[in-house]
Amino acid sequence: MINMHEIDLSKYKIRTDLIVEHISNFKEYERHEELYKDIKIETITLDKDSAKLISKKEGIYKTIYFDDATDENNFNDLLHATTIVLKDLLKSIDIKNDDNPLIVGLGNRKATPDALGPLTVDSIKITRQIVELGLPLDPKYRVISSLVPGVMGTTGIETKEIIEGVIEKTKPDFLIVIDALAASSLERINKTIQITDTGIHPGSGLLNNRFEISKETLGIPVIAIGIPTVVDATTIVSNTINYIFRHFSYEKENINNNKLKLVPQFNRNYKNHDKTLNKKEKKEVMGLIGDLSEEEIKTLITEVLTPLGYNLLVTPKEIDFVIEKLSLLLSKALNKSLELN
Amino acid sequence: MINMHEIDLSKYKIRTDLIVEHISNFKEYERHEELYKDIKIETITLDKDSAKLISKKEGIYKTIYFDDATDENNFNDLLHATTIVLKDLLKSIDIKNDDNPLIVGLGNRKATPDALGPLTVDSIKITRQIVELGLPLDPKYRVISSLVPGVMGTTGIETKEIIEGVIEKTKPDFLIVIDALAASSLERINKTIQITDTGIHPGSGLLNNRFEISKETLGIPVIAIGIPTVVDATTIVSNTINYIFRHFSYEKENINNNKLKLVPQFNRNYKNHDKTLNKKEKKEVMGLIGDLSEEEIKTLITEVLTPLGYNLLVTPKEIDFVIEKLSLLLSKALNKSLELN
Amino acid sequence: MINMHEIDLSKYKIRTDLIVEHISNFKEYERHEELYKDIKIETITLDKDSAKLISKKEGIYKTIYFDDATDENNFNDLLHATTIVLKDLLKSIDIKNDDNPLIVGLGNRKATPDALGPLTVDSIKITRQIVELGLPLDPKYRVISSLVPGVMGTTGIETKEIIEGVIEKTKPDFLIVIDALAASSLERINKTIQITDTGIHPGSGLLNNRFEISKETLGIPVIAIGIPTVVDATTIVSNTINYIFRHFSYEKENINNNKLKLVPQFNRNYKNHDKTLNKKEKKEVMGLIGDLSEEEIKTLITEVLTPLGYNLLVTPKEIDFVIEKLSLLLSKALNKSLELN
Amino acid sequence: MINMHEIDLSKYKIRTDLIVEHISNFKEYERHEELYKDIKIETITLDKDSAKLISKKEGIYKTIYFDDATDENNFNDLLHATTIVLKDLLKSIDIKNDDNPLIVGLGNRKATPDALGPLTVDSIKITRQIVELGLPLDPKYRVISSLVPGVMGTTGIETKEIIEGVIEKTKPDFLIVIDALAASSLERINKTIQITDTGIHPGSGLLNNRFEISKETLGIPVIAIGIPTVVDATTIVSNTINYIFRHFSYEKENINNNKLKLVPQFNRNYKNHDKTLNKKEKKEVMGLIGDLSEEEIKTLITEVLTPLGYNLLVTPKEIDFVIEKLSLLLSKALNKSLELN
Repeated sequence: MINMHEIDLSKYKIRTDLIVEHISNFKEYERHEELYKDIKIETITLDKDSAKLISKKEGIYKTIYFDDATDENNFNDLLHATTIVLKDLLKSIDIKNDDNPLIVGLGNRKATPDALGPLTVDSIKITRQIVELGLPLDPKYRVISSLVPGVMGTTGIETKEIIEGVIEKTKPDFLIVIDALAASSLERINKTIQITDTGIHPGSGLLNNRFEISKETLGIPVIAIGIPTVVDATTIVSNTINYIFRHFSYEKENINNNKLKLVPQFNRNYKNHDKTLNKKEKKEVMGLIGDLSEEEIKTLITEVLTPLGYNLLVTPKEIDFVIEKLSLLLSKALNKSLELN
Repeated sequence: MINMHEIDLSKYKIRTDLIVEHISNFKEYERHEELYKDIKIETITLDKDSAKLISKKEGIYKTIYFDDATDENNFNDLLHATTIVLKDLLKSIDIKNDDNPLIVGLGNRKATPDALGPLTVDSIKITRQIVELGLPLDPKYRVISSLVPGVMGTTGIETKEIIEGVIEKTKPDFLIVIDALAASSLERINKTIQITDTGIHPGSGLLNNRFEISKETLGIPVIAIGIPTVVDATTIVSNTINYIFRHFSYEKENINNNKLKLVPQFNRNYKNHDKTLNKKEKKEVMGLIGDLSEEEIKTLITEVLTPLGYNLLVTPKEIDFVIEKLSLLLSKALNKSLELN
Repeated sequence: MINMHEIDLSKYKIRTDLIVEHISNFKEYERHEELYKDIKIETITLDKDSAKLISKKEGIYKTIYFDDATDENNFNDLLHATTIVLKDLLKSIDIKNDDNPLIVGLGNRKATPDALGPLTVDSIKITRQIVELGLPLDPKYRVISSLVPGVMGTTGIETKEIIEGVIEKTKPDFLIVIDALAASSLERINKTIQITDTGIHPGSGLLNNRFEISKETLGIPVIAIGIPTVVDATTIVSNTINYIFRHFSYEKENINNNKLKLVPQFNRNYKNHDKTLNKKEKKEVMGLIGDLSEEEIKTLITEVLTPLGYNLLVTPKEIDFVIEKLSLLLSKALNKSLELN
Repeated sequence: MINMHEIDLSKYKIRTDLIVEHISNFKEYERHEELYKDIKIETITLDKDSAKLISKKEGIYKTIYFDDATDENNFNDLLHATTIVLKDLLKSIDIKNDDNPLIVGLGNRKATPDALGPLTVDSIKITRQIVELGLPLDPKYRVISSLVPGVMGTTGIETKEIIEGVIEKTKPDFLIVIDALAASSLERINKTIQITDTGIHPGSGLLNNRFEISKETLGIPVIAIGIPTVVDATTIVSNTINYIFRHFSYEKENINNNKLKLVPQFNRNYKNHDKTLNKKEKKEVMGLIGDLSEEEIKTLITEVLTPLGYNLLVTPKEIDFVIEKLSLLLSKALNKSLELN
């Protein structure tokens, strides 16, 4: 007999920066949801107390959910939505017309899934040099500068130190940082943009040992824009276990549905079936594993994969095209939302 | 009550080109294994009958297993091993000193995990133009030409048609094709090179609807070199279920091992523990799922993930660096093994 | 005493593909000129006899002159003009709605000034695979395929052989080839598009030893699109000698113009001063050199620079940005002009 | 009659950073020359007084002259020579074993001829992160960090400000900066490495309006490594005028040499003929132009080309391959010379 409970389910620090994943079962916060065509925009405002409860930072978290940014029509709708979200956030945190940003592209330009930040910055309209050279600047533009600091693995320097040094020399009024994130759900990879005024811990999704980039540490407002582009094997497996439960719940409910019997298994679309199995059924389907909580399952899978070296962080094989589109999207949305009227 | 067996476990065509995965339980073939330092070289020779049994082609399949090609020492050992394997295969299929190859880099140059072929060809020493321009060629070189045909999605043309057209015009004596493959095991991704004289079905790993590139279809010997660089989510999950069984088998065996209790779960290295649970234990740990065969589990997971659009083909996030190293490795090994002495 | 005429002024084959440079002093042909905003479109039609006179091929040569394709407004005007020119040429050579093109990007993708063809093809809308896979094609599209054959230096194969092989397999109705050219004038570098139905000699601008790609050699109509992106040192020097003569002519004419004396030398804009010095003045300014014809000067300079290895082919240092814009321009113009209405 | 002397030959600021070009006619300094195989290494030491005379900075200027870095044998010799020169300079300016450098790649990564600095830094062995993460560092390595600050045109920030900010945060002991330069001689393009302890004015070769990066401005030793990769049209023309004089001098001297008459003009190698025409002969060949000093000729040509927009900065068309090799060379030489023994 194996007794699962001899296994130590000590807390496993989940690799994710997406606020919505942290608070999926959490109630005590202000939450607002809008739709623009197929795109969902969710705004969560955490005050000091609710933030504390989920070990997150106080502030505004805006999440844009979309389906496929490489489709041309979606792209334009998404550009519209992202621009509006950025403008709203700039207003919410009281950025004035004469406030000038430093835009920072975090991540490693030479690792495709991590290149979102650098590639976005490549297409930002930079204007600070015009002013520095004593030339007249079209009044519709802010004074905008940018920085691609690289990653500690290739520079040997904490990202935060480089940013801090440049802020001291160039005195921007606020910071916008763009970074690729790790997702804790298959559903969100390359399909979510999170925009927040709470800053970022570079590498907190992917690695550790980096320093926070935020208003608290840098002294000026920090807007962080992130898109999850990688996911770890543990997440893929634990997500799939949940889908197995939902799948069986759907099949069970439709077991006497003669129409469905004509549909091949691969096409039985239970995407909108949001019920799952009950505790007893889960145990029947998945044995001891079915008896564990979601968190416990994740911990177990991490313990299974890590010693083998297989808890890989992976990215979809089309990542080159996706990153190209998403960085173009963010740079266009930033250029538009920073323009003055 | 759910009855698993109402689910149709009709055969699911596994996405893989790696011969060793197909024949893991298969006995009737000639198999030879060598070690060079940490690198394992396996040679499987399928005659007509044994090939038929596993729906594979008759011929020689050489597989090189290694750990990390981005490590400098490993790289040199691996280069040595790969060069020897290539030389052996050239000899086995009776390639003469005055036989001249066309080297073809399959795949999409602009999709990192699919760029192995094009990048390898970029560093091949090409000599055919010297002869064509009427200049003297150093006798240590064969007359070598190359081709990067692109993929059907971007050219609109079957890869095989392009190769065929070029063969008719340039009359090479044999073909070497290099391609990125899909693996059906987490263990093999970026860690295996398969070299065979049986040719290739471009996209048979990743897609369908392509034509075979082989001696039968082109009329000249075809050496195919492949490295698995992507894996699908189904594989990740079904592999992990196996690892869960092995993990519990290890834990169970060591349950009274007091030394092990001091080792944190994440470090309990059961990599070399090759036992697994028995049928009854599997059922206890995994319920109905534990009762299924490996093939049935794969089919189930595919049915669960496909309707949601989550049976993603993924690649490790470090793929840019790995592809750079692996393509360098293959080009160096090809340059060396094609040199005449 | 040096006698210039002892120097052998044997004919020097000028490196250029731009028809207008060949016929600058030539009268007996049909020539038509249009303006679209700042863009000049010149159409030259050579019949058999006039073509023979200047050692060019019979056919239609359309040249678009523009200033700066990296400026956003110019870009849109230029896109409009190029699309119209392409549509006109398709009509002139009687391409029907059900004629399907193979679009070929000549040149070396890895050498920036030579990458125009491959980069253009990267953004062409390819549709042939849709038909090949048995799927329905939107009737507004032709059946379009593409090919990036590489260059002989890296493939070992004549470009024409690869194209020929692919034509035989895929049977396109006409060919469109895109290539970077060498200019014989500083004025035209990155500022001219030549479109012709007479085909192309790959490398005839840059190298030799390649085969003609034309209706005569391939059996189907060939539209060639070229932009000069490199120029040799001889051209830079001989052009400058002409500018020196024009400059002195301008200065001489304005020697008593007191207003001009207030303008610094660098700003004295003689761009529209199209007079030059007379023979005697040229000799005074430039000695024996001033006595030579333009052709003789080019020959002399080639003889001076070649033995030193300094008759370099060069490209402006901004070439990366220019090629990016020009390839985008050509791909957009091709996509538009090939669409059916 | 034209009187050349009415043309204002006011001083024209020559675009070059190569010290040897500045002092070609200058005697009062310490100069040392060595040969390693085909490679010439020149060391010039300017004291305060001699530096003042030529408007250069006091310090050590080491110049390595070579022929073709893309040839494999030359590459290894050049690597050896460059490593030695770097080690010598480190010793000369008293860099200790426990002094740690920040290595800065200046220039624009996305403009090929300007990408030398960023590409070099990409292959530098960085170690500072090891120490920062509290891990043990192999004693043969210094603590090395790096920075690719970008260019003002794309960041909006003076390069010097970024470097200064990072120095304040990370406290390196000395700086190594790598940059692409403009040459004032066709002979030196892609064929010279200048290494100096006097720092650099980013863009002083290519542009202005940047700030000096030197020990004086930053407070720590600065080693600057530069390779000329671009040249302007004025230089090409004025160099060629000199070659014309040398060419005629050679032809004149060999006018009765019957053997030479059999050699085609293009092959008459006067490379080692270091005589030129006398004043009277120059005037005969080149008229008024022949009467001008070299400096006056440059000024004239600049005045001729600038108003037309044709004083282009150009780079050889093979620049992609050359930059790849040269950046590899510099990174290997830096990695070797910074290693401790």
